[in-house]
Amino acid sequence: MRALMFEGGRRTLADLPRPEPTGECLIRVRLAGICGTDLQLLDGYADFAGVPGHEFVGTVESVSRPEDERWIGRRVVGEINVGCGECPRCRSGLKEHCGRRSVLGIRGRPGAFAEYVSLPADNLHTVPPHVDDETAVFAEPVAAACRILEQVRLDGGARVAVLGDGRLGLLAAQVLRHAGATVRVLGRHAQKIQTGRALDLDAALDDGAAPAEPYEIVVEATGRPAGLPRALALVRPRGTVVLKSTFHGEAPLELWPAVVHEVSIVGSRCGPFAPALALLASGAVRVAPLVQGVYALDDHDEAFRVAARGLKVLLKP
Amino acid sequence: MRALMFEGGRRTLADLPRPEPTGECLIRVRLAGICGTDLQLLDGYADFAGVPGHEFVGTVESVSRPEDERWIGRRVVGEINVGCGECPRCRSGLKEHCGRRSVLGIRGRPGAFAEYVSLPADNLHTVPPHVDDETAVFAEPVAAACRILEQVRLDGGARVAVLGDGRLGLLAAQVLRHAGATVRVLGRHAQKIQTGRALDLDAALDDGAAPAEPYEIVVEATGRPAGLPRALALVRPRGTVVLKSTFHGEAPLELWPAVVHEVSIVGSRCGPFAPALALLASGAVRVAPLVQGVYALDDHDEAFRVAARGLKVLLKP
Repeated sequence: MRALMFEGGRRTLADLPRPEPTGECLIRVRLAGICGTDLQLLDGYADFAGVPGHEFVGTVESVSRPEDERWIGRRVVGEINVGCGECPRCRSGLKEHCGRRSVLGIRGRPGAFAEYVSLPADNLHTVPPHVDDETAVFAEPVAAACRILEQVRLDGGARVAVLGDGRLGLLAAQVLRHAGATVRVLGRHAQKIQTGRALDLDAALDDGAAPAEPYEIVVEATGRPAGLPRALALVRPRGTVVLKSTFHGEAPLELWPAVVHEVSIVGSRCGPFAPALALLASGAVRVAPLVQGVYALDDHDEAFRVAARGLKVLLKP
Repeated sequence: MRALMFEGGRRTLADLPRPEPTGECLIRVRLAGICGTDLQLLDGYADFAGVPGHEFVGTVESVSRPEDERWIGRRVVGEINVGCGECPRCRSGLKEHCGRRSVLGIRGRPGAFAEYVSLPADNLHTVPPHVDDETAVFAEPVAAACRILEQVRLDGGARVAVLGDGRLGLLAAQVLRHAGATVRVLGRHAQKIQTGRALDLDAALDDGAAPAEPYEIVVEATGRPAGLPRALALVRPRGTVVLKSTFHGEAPLELWPAVVHEVSIVGSRCGPFAPALALLASGAVRVAPLVQGVYALDDHDEAFRVAARGLKVLLKP
């Protein structure tokens, strides 16, 4: 099968054997999304080498266990963490934090920038028929945004700033708004701010000034080292910064403001797929304005060029 | 009155006018404690210039409001934050986070390394008669340790590492142990580790290795930039790092582990005096082994020399 590979900061197309999953399902990838993390992987994050891609929608083509046969032919999205199934964390339902886990397209498991991908049936979620592929492919990042709702309390319509006008920022802002928060997106890119406004979000260029009224919650989704210091300048005493950015290397950080203002900085990664699919199905989270192109694997140079500067770019293997 | 002053990294003795408090109480300082923050102030933290000192026990000598007369002659300790009394934070009881607050010996208010100090009666707590001065002077740092109990849940005897074998670390470890946690102190100083063991604490030199089992909660009380990265290496996924260290300048930090492991980093500052005094009064928190000397203001050179390397040093103005 054809697949895109990352190694040593280079992207190449390869012809690889189709996965022959044991105990898992073989899924034909219909669409895959390029995420900020994929760009970070190219940049050295997680020492990644292999087939990336962890946002996808596909069709189950075959299964290796009789009990999974009902999945054949279903259109699915998939959770990306596969735990060992045996450790205390897996047994308590925390496969996302299994020390021996593999992560689709990120750690020890080939990803979805390929014609086929393999995942256990337990990781799969059926896509409702009226949700099209270009919407369903957002299930993983919307789930990551839904994770925030499990981590912070939005009592009485909290004032939230989403720092970052990129893919994740514009999804998180919609998820938080739907949950009752008063959300403001602060970004650095006039065009992405316009996209935010097209989604009826309160979005503005971040002027770097102290806010008139600091925010109860700041979601840091800039993908840049400067994001956390700026978030700490925007959050109110005893407020919460939700940290979404992962990037390679160290960031210089002045820590005492977090201590003096007793801020909580909460790392936030993968989230629940069921509410994400529901938000996509109901239209509460809209994704069409974010899509800047659908490319064949052959056109990966152009796809990644657009993804590096723009919003969501999709690959159609 | 005689007072110690910090300015531009220098310590000098000065003869200052006695405070003439309006709406506050005049307190004769019986004993004051040198805290890690005082050493940081000398090092440039908070751009401080003036009389430092925020840990004290004293006797109320006079008051400026008739309704405060009952305080005269009482032996007291004092909360260090004085809010404006008018802003929403003050009105909701959060004077510690009033934007216009003064902080005893730290921000806009002369501190306790002097013969007299002034504080509002609302900030004062009477010391029980059987608690001696050398114990009562620890009320403020023990209160700061008690703040942790308001911020984390210690369900079912949580496993906690206290990182740092200094003044605050050995107090926090005792407070957390009393609250039901299983506590291990990890430090860098053989002698301080011995003091921890004299307090019946499980204390050991930190070998820098990955822990056999990561901790649910890590209290970062090292006062050093290397503390938070080490805390992030000790805490389990979805665990909590309580950040106590304030120091001048930036620290390089690799942030992605906090995101990938979904760690919460919680800034923690001042805490409640009533439970602190109760812990000191009952002997649940023992402080005598921490005291390494009591010095007159005249001997501040020697006092600060000892404090820079040792545990608690007291000043007797």
